[in-house]
Amino acid sequence: MKKNQRREFLKSSGLASLGLFGAGSALAQEFDQLPFEAKKGLNRIQSFNMSGYAAPKLDVVRVGIVGLGMRGPGAVDRLSKIEGVQIKALCDLLPDRVAKAQKMLEGTDHQAEGYSGSVYSWKTMCERDDLDLIYIATPWEWHTPMAVYAMESGKHAAVEVPAARTLDECWQLVETSERTKKHCMQLENCCYDFFELMTLKMAREGFFGEVVHVEGAYIHDLLWLNFDKEKGYQGMWRLKENYRNGNLYPTHGLGPVCQILNINRGDQMDYLTSLSSHDFQMKKEAQRLAQEDMFWAEYASKSYRGNMNTTVVKTKNGKSIMIQHDVTSPRPYSRLHVVSGTEGYAQKYPEPKVSKGHSWMKEEEMKELEKKYTPEIVQKVGDLAKEVGGHGGMDFMMDWRLIDCLRHGLPLDQDVYDAALWSAISPLSEWSVANRSNSIDVPDFTGGHWKTNAPVPITLRG
Amino acid sequence: MKKNQRREFLKSSGLASLGLFGAGSALAQEFDQLPFEAKKGLNRIQSFNMSGYAAPKLDVVRVGIVGLGMRGPGAVDRLSKIEGVQIKALCDLLPDRVAKAQKMLEGTDHQAEGYSGSVYSWKTMCERDDLDLIYIATPWEWHTPMAVYAMESGKHAAVEVPAARTLDECWQLVETSERTKKHCMQLENCCYDFFELMTLKMAREGFFGEVVHVEGAYIHDLLWLNFDKEKGYQGMWRLKENYRNGNLYPTHGLGPVCQILNINRGDQMDYLTSLSSHDFQMKKEAQRLAQEDMFWAEYASKSYRGNMNTTVVKTKNGKSIMIQHDVTSPRPYSRLHVVSGTEGYAQKYPEPKVSKGHSWMKEEEMKELEKKYTPEIVQKVGDLAKEVGGHGGMDFMMDWRLIDCLRHGLPLDQDVYDAALWSAISPLSEWSVANRSNSIDVPDFTGGHWKTNAPVPITLRG
Repeated sequence: MKKNQRREFLKSSGLASLGLFGAGSALAQEFDQLPFEAKKGLNRIQSFNMSGYAAPKLDVVRVGIVGLGMRGPGAVDRLSKIEGVQIKALCDLLPDRVAKAQKMLEGTDHQAEGYSGSVYSWKTMCERDDLDLIYIATPWEWHTPMAVYAMESGKHAAVEVPAARTLDECWQLVETSERTKKHCMQLENCCYDFFELMTLKMAREGFFGEVVHVEGAYIHDLLWLNFDKEKGYQGMWRLKENYRNGNLYPTHGLGPVCQILNINRGDQMDYLTSLSSHDFQMKKEAQRLAQEDMFWAEYASKSYRGNMNTTVVKTKNGKSIMIQHDVTSPRPYSRLHVVSGTEGYAQKYPEPKVSKGHSWMKEEEMKELEKKYTPEIVQKVGDLAKEVGGHGGMDFMMDWRLIDCLRHGLPLDQDVYDAALWSAISPLSEWSVANRSNSIDVPDFTGGHWKTNAPVPITLRG
Repeated sequence: MKKNQRREFLKSSGLASLGLFGAGSALAQEFDQLPFEAKKGLNRIQSFNMSGYAAPKLDVVRVGIVGLGMRGPGAVDRLSKIEGVQIKALCDLLPDRVAKAQKMLEGTDHQAEGYSGSVYSWKTMCERDDLDLIYIATPWEWHTPMAVYAMESGKHAAVEVPAARTLDECWQLVETSERTKKHCMQLENCCYDFFELMTLKMAREGFFGEVVHVEGAYIHDLLWLNFDKEKGYQGMWRLKENYRNGNLYPTHGLGPVCQILNINRGDQMDYLTSLSSHDFQMKKEAQRLAQEDMFWAEYASKSYRGNMNTTVVKTKNGKSIMIQHDVTSPRPYSRLHVVSGTEGYAQKYPEPKVSKGHSWMKEEEMKELEKKYTPEIVQKVGDLAKEVGGHGGMDFMMDWRLIDCLRHGLPLDQDVYDAALWSAISPLSEWSVANRSNSIDVPDFTGGHWKTNAPVPITLRG
């Protein structure tokens, strides 16, 4: 299959137009067995370009939310506070979570029907004909099946990170979004953090000159949470994700720097290499717990992801991206955000710092900078966002912007190609880690359209 | 030659014992043409283990210094202030540099004969029979030939970074040091910086638990210096080094973290991958200058190293090392120093920070930490070092320690295996960058002895 066009494979297999590309379908299984090389999408031809796509305006955005465990309830709260939203349906495997979320909406204008009790309750919700958007905050392995089903059912999909766990899933999202002309937005909230938004505007307005190198990371000690039976995740799913070895959570670090580099929109990832340390923490913790509680015996026998993963990407335009992932080391939280250009430099974590030359800007200069480079969205809803909260306000800005775009018929900031590409770093890094960190080509999900796609807008309403 | 023992190749070629392994020799040329694989040193058998080697005590260390341009004069000044040193010879291609350095010594007990006027004046100096140590601060391409010749002439060699530019040169240093039983110390001054020394002691005493991941860097905007005809480097040699593409200056970042990980002494590098951005700065600068001055025409036609290089190394014990190199971007100086372990974390640049858990230590706690983990060498000569200077004192501590070890017959902190390995990152990164960042095995210069070699001492006199 090497170098064959994927589209041609789909055609010749006779399944391309049948819409059977959902999880568990015959085609998905067949695709699973393709050699890795065949999944690159070389010379793939798009059926429709979703980059810059503006769906028909919606006066009111009617929302169904699935997944009410860790991240869902916050979304219910935020969306209930945004003008032009109607939360009409709430779904979770567990009925009490649905009831709790419904209770949150008491006294508001939102009347949300509940769906629960079956692992496929969400399908019934998706099939309603009075919803515009399915908002997905479930365990990772459900993200793609649910987003695909939502689009197949005629709804836009907004899906938590990572939108996909395998290259196959990435392609499913792309194929489905293009065919159905429904948005598939990955809920990468870090693109809406304040310093990240400011550096995006600075980049656009030439502060950095030519951006040469960027960095991002998700360094957050979640060891305790992964191993907490009570507060942790349903069926310990998140701990089990750590049986894979690579950067399993790349999008927080990647999102903001990919927007700055215009990835998928003027530049494209070319290849990457990924290296993981061994695991010195997770198996040890499982073994420690297993000595006192047989529940952990299963987990004590497993191998876990290397504690620190470092992935480096080269882009077609010659830029480099360094991304790190460490969710077990006991160190201060860091979502590294570095932008290094021919004329300026910025970094966050521990604290935001900017330079134009060899010295850091002083407090006064930083204030001037903020005045000059605070984007319109922050000027408009920044204060409200901080008030409502959700990771310091960025979650609210993300939701607000999503709804605003849908209501005004604007392209979304994050399209299906971003969802696929940013998520694809996980399986690609797994491959590289498993192959002595040899490099691997990154698929071009845009089918070559990255050369002409317009950059993501950072102003309001285009 | 794949998997053949290098030693056996040397034997069968009949040149091994002839001492003809200097630069430009027949053997060196033959070795140059070996396939890259043959240079790995797989299954190589040491002729003698220089790790932990203690040379006979010297009451007085008689020194000859070669290279009196950028770094040499500082060494003359520092060495002249250390007890038990006699500076007996000074050498440079240019006579006026020698005269200037001799003038520095006026009024001291040092009477140094001058050598200059020929590109081989240093050989005459090395051949004197009243010197113990040749201190080398010349352009990079002379480092290995001079260190090899010094050892062949029965002198210890102390050589500026990088000690070698090619794998061939790395092996020349190792072979020569083992055969002659002369020290070959790379002058990696950053191993003697204050925070770096403190974190080494912290690591040894268990502060970090198991160290999982470390980082180092040399990020220093030298664009102006590389392109300065007057203040710059003789014959623009340093600019010309940048025709190579990789991490050309890895040792400043690597030295301190390799000592912390016990590399060559309990752990060993296994493989690495390296990725460079394109060059957006150097060629452009050459072209800009060439418009006004034909001197630069030669340089405007060349290709230069990618501006940011990121190299990631996996060790045999499963640790990861991230090293960066950027000497052209206009950003604040950073010699990143990160130590991340299962129980603690430290980082430097911008400022030193330490954590035991999720919060940074406060000023008071940092003071307590310094009290507890300031190594003996800093207690003894730290104040004097700051007074004499040289990159804030670390240069003096390095020289002082070198002389102290030679006078007391102690093993040096940095042996020939460290010089070879840390320098080897350059050619290995060049290979990886040129091969789409595929990974490459790192040679084991210790011939397997890394498993049993003792860690570098951080106390005084063992």
